[in-house]
Amino acid sequence: MGSLMSGVAPVEHNTQGIAPVLDANTTPQEAREAFRRGVVRPTCGIARGFAQANMIALPREYAFDFLLFTQRNPKPCPILEVLDPGNPKPSIAAGSDIRTDIPLYRVWEHGELVDTCSDITDIWARHDDLVTFLIGCSFTFEFPLMEAGIPVHHIEAGRNVPMYDTSIACKPAGRFSSTMVVSMRGIQPDRIADAVRISGYYPSVHGAPVWVGEPEGIGIPDLQHPDYGDPPIMKDGDIPVFWACGVTPQAAVMASQPSFAITHAPGHMFLTDIPDRSFMV
Amino acid sequence: MGSLMSGVAPVEHNTQGIAPVLDANTTPQEAREAFRRGVVRPTCGIARGFAQANMIALPREYAFDFLLFTQRNPKPCPILEVLDPGNPKPSIAAGSDIRTDIPLYRVWEHGELVDTCSDITDIWARHDDLVTFLIGCSFTFEFPLMEAGIPVHHIEAGRNVPMYDTSIACKPAGRFSSTMVVSMRGIQPDRIADAVRISGYYPSVHGAPVWVGEPEGIGIPDLQHPDYGDPPIMKDGDIPVFWACGVTPQAAVMASQPSFAITHAPGHMFLTDIPDRSFMV
Repeated sequence: MGSLMSGVAPVEHNTQGIAPVLDANTTPQEAREAFRRGVVRPTCGIARGFAQANMIALPREYAFDFLLFTQRNPKPCPILEVLDPGNPKPSIAAGSDIRTDIPLYRVWEHGELVDTCSDITDIWARHDDLVTFLIGCSFTFEFPLMEAGIPVHHIEAGRNVPMYDTSIACKPAGRFSSTMVVSMRGIQPDRIADAVRISGYYPSVHGAPVWVGEPEGIGIPDLQHPDYGDPPIMKDGDIPVFWACGVTPQAAVMASQPSFAITHAPGHMFLTDIPDRSFMV
Repeated sequence: MGSLMSGVAPVEHNTQGIAPVLDANTTPQEAREAFRRGVVRPTCGIARGFAQANMIALPREYAFDFLLFTQRNPKPCPILEVLDPGNPKPSIAAGSDIRTDIPLYRVWEHGELVDTCSDITDIWARHDDLVTFLIGCSFTFEFPLMEAGIPVHHIEAGRNVPMYDTSIACKPAGRFSSTMVVSMRGIQPDRIADAVRISGYYPSVHGAPVWVGEPEGIGIPDLQHPDYGDPPIMKDGDIPVFWACGVTPQAAVMASQPSFAITHAPGHMFLTDIPDRSFMV
């Protein structure tokens, strides 16, 4: 799966020959329109200041179990919006359509990845009761970290954040169980307290870290080989700091094998119109 | 319904002739055991420092819609725990049983109150898939208000908090829609900012107020005639301050008429083992 999850250099595959510049100054609406036209690229660095969201859509029969899973595991699965069954129009992004506005989707059957595509309109039409969950993303507190003078190395290097499967058990709910996926950022010892404090102000986008230090303690054998995203950049003296990650629902899909699911591809997020600062408590 | 909802004087109806003293120093476990033995009284003033919870149990078929209702309306419906279908044993109170440990229950059919009782074991046995929702209660931030020198008049007078139906619309979810129920506390103008700030530290137990001032603005015609609880005590200069209230699910039951529901009786809460301070963010 690595090829789908790594490589965030802004290579654009535009099916209609248009090459819009997508950067920090792009509005969320402009970016969604570009993705709708067929642009495929990771979303880190686009539309600075607006929240990005993880996505999973499941048949109605799984919706209660999964919503309960998110309620019991708010650190990896902080809910931003749950759409009514069959509704593809999120309210947190004006004029948006969840079937077309994410740059890259993954389609799952019985826990197996069966397709990767940039538009799910046809697939959606064959399922009339999909319930879409939009889940907060740690990209939201990365800019506040940087504004406080805490370097976020993967952003400076134009890479995707490294993400890892762990041995941390999520609380099960009905048919869903999973271990937690985490994202990692290397931080100097004198800034860890600030990173904890600042990210802690954003509980609805994963909040404070779940683990600081030794990766082995949470079942990560090799920091240089993340399960998702790009290898980390660790500076001298950096301590690895781990945050709960919104890719956890995809681990739950693999572990729990619902008959059908659609998710975003890691790093290819849904751009909302919600300012990051509105999540600060 | 007023007679069920008002009158918090500690009159005890003990079916077994035992008259335990239930007060601020009682532990939650001791109080639950007393209620299990048949003591019926409101829970305000009992087990100071431990969170009390609103309760609603619904058949599995309504569980997704109701969980979505709580997710979309976190101010009146902050979830503390959702139990698996059929499970009557909350994890947030050791050794507890939701069928016996609340002092007084209300049983609803198609939105109508059909029974009030102090034990639902027999009723529960006729429904094998009830999903129990435990929802935060504003009693949790009343002690921090008092510790900050903000008088809470209804506690000082040994009354239940006044609660009101309002014109504030909750966000609908599936088969559930409702207006919001609020609780009210009269506060002096120079302490309103503190009351907002202190209660705002407790978002999982209703958090900051939803309305400050003119009751008419949210459809309350007469402050002296609450829809639930006891009439308020307003001191000279007090401004009415309104918080979202966990009785809202009962308004949703009345408005949305699920085939069956069990709730606590207002003011007769489920006592948890969770310290109030653990809800402070």
